[in-house]
Amino acid sequence: MPRRTEPPADMLPVEEALARILDLVREMPAELRPIREATGQVLAADVVAPFDIPPHDNTAMDGYAVQAADTAPAGADVDGEGAAELRVIGELAAGYVYEGAVGPGEAVRIMTGAPMPSGADSIVPFEETDETGLQAPGQSADAGQRSVRVLKAARPGANIRRRGEDVRQGALILTRGLVLRGAEIAVLASMGIGAVSVVRRPRVAILSTGDELLTPGASAEGEPPAPGKIYDSNAYGLAALVEEYGGVPVLSGIASDTVPALTAKIAEAVAAADMVVTSAGVSRGDFDVVKEVLAQEGEVRFWTVRMKPGKPLAFGRFSAADGRAVPHIGLPGNPVSSLLAFELFGRPALFKMQGRQVQARPVVTAVADEPIINTDARRVYARAIVDRAADGRWHARLTGPQGSGVLTSMAYANGYAVCPAERERVAVGEEVEVLMVDWEHAPD
Amino acid sequence: MPRRTEPPADMLPVEEALARILDLVREMPAELRPIREATGQVLAADVVAPFDIPPHDNTAMDGYAVQAADTAPAGADVDGEGAAELRVIGELAAGYVYEGAVGPGEAVRIMTGAPMPSGADSIVPFEETDETGLQAPGQSADAGQRSVRVLKAARPGANIRRRGEDVRQGALILTRGLVLRGAEIAVLASMGIGAVSVVRRPRVAILSTGDELLTPGASAEGEPPAPGKIYDSNAYGLAALVEEYGGVPVLSGIASDTVPALTAKIAEAVAAADMVVTSAGVSRGDFDVVKEVLAQEGEVRFWTVRMKPGKPLAFGRFSAADGRAVPHIGLPGNPVSSLLAFELFGRPALFKMQGRQVQARPVVTAVADEPIINTDARRVYARAIVDRAADGRWHARLTGPQGSGVLTSMAYANGYAVCPAERERVAVGEEVEVLMVDWEHAPD
Repeated sequence: MPRRTEPPADMLPVEEALARILDLVREMPAELRPIREATGQVLAADVVAPFDIPPHDNTAMDGYAVQAADTAPAGADVDGEGAAELRVIGELAAGYVYEGAVGPGEAVRIMTGAPMPSGADSIVPFEETDETGLQAPGQSADAGQRSVRVLKAARPGANIRRRGEDVRQGALILTRGLVLRGAEIAVLASMGIGAVSVVRRPRVAILSTGDELLTPGASAEGEPPAPGKIYDSNAYGLAALVEEYGGVPVLSGIASDTVPALTAKIAEAVAAADMVVTSAGVSRGDFDVVKEVLAQEGEVRFWTVRMKPGKPLAFGRFSAADGRAVPHIGLPGNPVSSLLAFELFGRPALFKMQGRQVQARPVVTAVADEPIINTDARRVYARAIVDRAADGRWHARLTGPQGSGVLTSMAYANGYAVCPAERERVAVGEEVEVLMVDWEHAPD
Repeated sequence: MPRRTEPPADMLPVEEALARILDLVREMPAELRPIREATGQVLAADVVAPFDIPPHDNTAMDGYAVQAADTAPAGADVDGEGAAELRVIGELAAGYVYEGAVGPGEAVRIMTGAPMPSGADSIVPFEETDETGLQAPGQSADAGQRSVRVLKAARPGANIRRRGEDVRQGALILTRGLVLRGAEIAVLASMGIGAVSVVRRPRVAILSTGDELLTPGASAEGEPPAPGKIYDSNAYGLAALVEEYGGVPVLSGIASDTVPALTAKIAEAVAAADMVVTSAGVSRGDFDVVKEVLAQEGEVRFWTVRMKPGKPLAFGRFSAADGRAVPHIGLPGNPVSSLLAFELFGRPALFKMQGRQVQARPVVTAVADEPIINTDARRVYARAIVDRAADGRWHARLTGPQGSGVLTSMAYANGYAVCPAERERVAVGEEVEVLMVDWEHAPD
């Protein structure tokens, strides 16, 4: 039996830590952006229709604009006997307006979307006439010379899209809080709206701390670090996550473990950003300098969270020189812990700052194909690959060794399988809840 | 009973159309990118570890580096009686190397990640000594003067992370085809790798066709279009989707319906891009000019696909002046059809061009809370909002009227609920497969 350590009573549950962090962050101000540059941003205000859609009565089909009464006797047999014959007085491509009027016995050849010619009250589709509809303008016979046979009686109003039928002027079309993706951008464009009020993306300063850190080189070949040194991977991983979560990363570099160096770096980060993320220096065993400076420069507190990996966490806020309150998240130094903690706490915080309504990841219930062991009564987030198996159920297997030093365990995961704090294990075949972080990342 | 139209036998099933399109596209060439700018791109080559991880034996815990033999008698009682007492000859913060050696009866105070001092063979964590580990360097008593009591016998090798323990030099750490997100970028950085070979993002030229089209204005207030005109929404919606799917959109503007205008615009688009997407001009009722130019400038064919909305589709390829084959997708002009068709065909094509392994969207089985009606034996993609309900199951409801003119029906959808071509309806309470396009988009 492995020794099972009870956590101290003052460990924060994950939900409590998250609630406290969310309490520190505010939605960013709105900005006006061209719709071409607003993809992924969140609507800062409701959008109402500036005019009716469609703005004018128009045709819903390719065919002929006619007076329905003219087609009333039409009840053609297979040879077209009994069809109404109408004189084609013009034709109209999409984008143009027919200037004349359709009188009794007349028809105007017309394409989908074209405005209804005056006088006409219905559209007869090509399929209900004796023409195939394949002629382009100029390819058909001269309009004044031609006639068309209507094979079926038309109903007044048939195949007409009425002004305002889809959307009435002033109607709410997009609600505040929606993320702008293809469809939303298309809705705006269809209304002639070329710029839109969106929540500004938060700038996130990322600061690594520690004398042992080296900046990776510029090449594709990694050199081994000098003894005692390690490459700063957190800043780069966190920057990619900030981008993925909709923020704008600002790399603030590495601060060495001295009070003046850290103080200067933090002031710089606070001035440049809407949120500051530091990594390392917050766990019990760390030298005091990071904690001391963080606590001195802002209202920052140090917590332990009942989770694994990633127990130590600091959060609070700094005051910028211009009076802004800048929230701070202090992550563990260990890269696996750091990335996981930023997923659990940084992502919802960034979402709230962006005005996004839904902050949680989707959770699926999967069958555990491997056990998840919990040795010390913290909630375990096991890096997992989730797939839908032949039995139609989701199955979760682990991405190799789950030590918090094994950074590659994060790379292959598309979800985090959760063993609750109060359970000692999830056994093979048991159901496990999995936080899905990447649906499209499951290898075959 | 509504009349049920059987589709012509030459209608392509969705899967067949997709297979033919994928057959036309190739993976883009690799490019070397700084890791800070490679987020979301796909690894073009396997990455192997350039050195062992850890690169040197180091400490896994904060504590004291000792010779285990010195602690053998330790079996201290609660008052510390029986503890081994060692002389602290130095202390070592992370990032530094202890230049001396640990001899019998000696200990070096050491922090997680620090290289093992020579002579020492094990680490005793603070918890197994009489010190709390909270002192920073300089805060503890002078090293030469101090001693530490070890409360528990240490095992040789205890709490040491061995060189190469996590990853061996030359071992495969990231495989070709992985999408670079936070964890993958962090893995590269941890190896000192600052630039990486990734598949180039495809440039996608987007060209709208039609004399009826207007470019949206620059302001947040939309003006009604002149009679017969509509705003070009497809280009903007498609550009946002191209971005979301990992491509780089190039807006090629609007081509009017004349042969010289279209020919010139297509030549421009082909020269600028790795893929050309056009919208409108491909359905049966359209005037021939778009089809004529597309077919003349490239090997483009026109299809009908057994789907609703979005039946007409063209695809093929153009030859650029420099000899490149540039694939082409010709979408319907209707905005709902156009966006849906690009989701179904453009997205997998762009994914293949990016070397992404998984191209399909996740599918969930949901309970239909509203019926989906299928009037003409095509596969219906109903715009749906999917939520996990209190019964623990996914439920799908529709986003209002499903007419193909109702663009807002796309905006609120987080999935497309599929009624198979061969079924006339999905009834309330029946199970329906839903293609999930946005997990985080479900309003409450």
